[in-house]
Amino acid sequence: MKSQAVVLLSGGLDSTTALYWAKHRGFRVVALSARYGQRHVRELSSARAVARAAGVRLHEVELDLPWLSGSSALTDRSRARPDGAVARIGKGPVPPTYVPGRNTIFLSLAASLSDAIGAESVVIGANVLDYSGYPDCRPDYLRAFERAARLGTRARRLRVLAPLLKLDKKGIVRLAKRLGAPLELTWSCYAGGGRPCGRCDSCKLRAKGFAQAGLSDEALRR
Amino acid sequence: MKSQAVVLLSGGLDSTTALYWAKHRGFRVVALSARYGQRHVRELSSARAVARAAGVRLHEVELDLPWLSGSSALTDRSRARPDGAVARIGKGPVPPTYVPGRNTIFLSLAASLSDAIGAESVVIGANVLDYSGYPDCRPDYLRAFERAARLGTRARRLRVLAPLLKLDKKGIVRLAKRLGAPLELTWSCYAGGGRPCGRCDSCKLRAKGFAQAGLSDEALRR
Repeated sequence: MKSQAVVLLSGGLDSTTALYWAKHRGFRVVALSARYGQRHVRELSSARAVARAAGVRLHEVELDLPWLSGSSALTDRSRARPDGAVARIGKGPVPPTYVPGRNTIFLSLAASLSDAIGAESVVIGANVLDYSGYPDCRPDYLRAFERAARLGTRARRLRVLAPLLKLDKKGIVRLAKRLGAPLELTWSCYAGGGRPCGRCDSCKLRAKGFAQAGLSDEALRR
Repeated sequence: MKSQAVVLLSGGLDSTTALYWAKHRGFRVVALSARYGQRHVRELSSARAVARAAGVRLHEVELDLPWLSGSSALTDRSRARPDGAVARIGKGPVPPTYVPGRNTIFLSLAASLSDAIGAESVVIGANVLDYSGYPDCRPDYLRAFERAARLGTRARRLRVLAPLLKLDKKGIVRLAKRLGAPLELTWSCYAGGGRPCGRCDSCKLRAKGFAQAGLSDEALRR
């Protein structure tokens, strides 16, 4: 019997690649997505489409966390489009698109689901670009969370796997292509519209990743 | 300016005592409660009453986590009343009233709220009786979570405080009385009825605590 993995799936490029990595590694994959008040809630229909394409079960969680609205450029619609952050990543303290404790909440939900269904691994798409700015994507944080989750659940061997940790966007796009991940279904734009804005940080980083990988982004043609 | 603390408040004896401890210690207290599918959802109106009596703001979170239903005697209404667990606590592996990853989720929500509002402490009512059975109440788990939360948020000095950690029920009842905590408003029964059943583990432990402390439980007269 294959070992189970819970993959945190936002519907974006990184988490979709992480999901296909887990499938490729032979895990029986269960996906988990969360609505937490993100303005780009459109990503969740991408998560559904990716899960369907991958043939994996998706658990969708609804989180009503009032304190998050207004605490981040990703959840506060009264703020301008969340860009300018890339320039600051790794330079300032924490980018404005940081959502307080988001990955700790997501990982705790994944640990809970793992404990309930007997999965031994949690997979997260954290990567170089993330952890240069977001505290909850850094390797030492991920190791510390893994330790806490092992101590705090029945799943004493629970592992937190971050297969993209050393990759930049170019590397992620290339890996995704190699794994046959349906990148045309993914959604990266932070702006909250019905089509990628092309101007927010997330759109720009994605475009750069595709360009550097020498590939075209089919999601833009849909 | 006083330091802020986020107190996890279930509406029971332990968390109410922890809240009054935090007030007594001079923290500016914000309370956090969660509906997660517990059959004893009645505890949440106790949480509201306690927060009102204490004059603190209560954040109520709604969690729809489908995998929890059926994974614990506390969330599965098709199971018998959750008792018999006390006899097993500290003897078997994990009691049937264990809810997978619950405290990791609760602590992550508290860490997120702390990070959003600038609180430096999270307070949880975990105690001797809990941690003899529940992995997510043990001191080493709480320290590990604290470390993960510090690394994963902007609140690098975040502390996880468990002021009842070395107390049994008798000690908690005594401390609560000393602090003037309104124990008559609290709710402990697991069974899910409108009045304490008096027969579930939680009712029995509470009764024993009051008896050993030489005090009567006013909540039973209401």
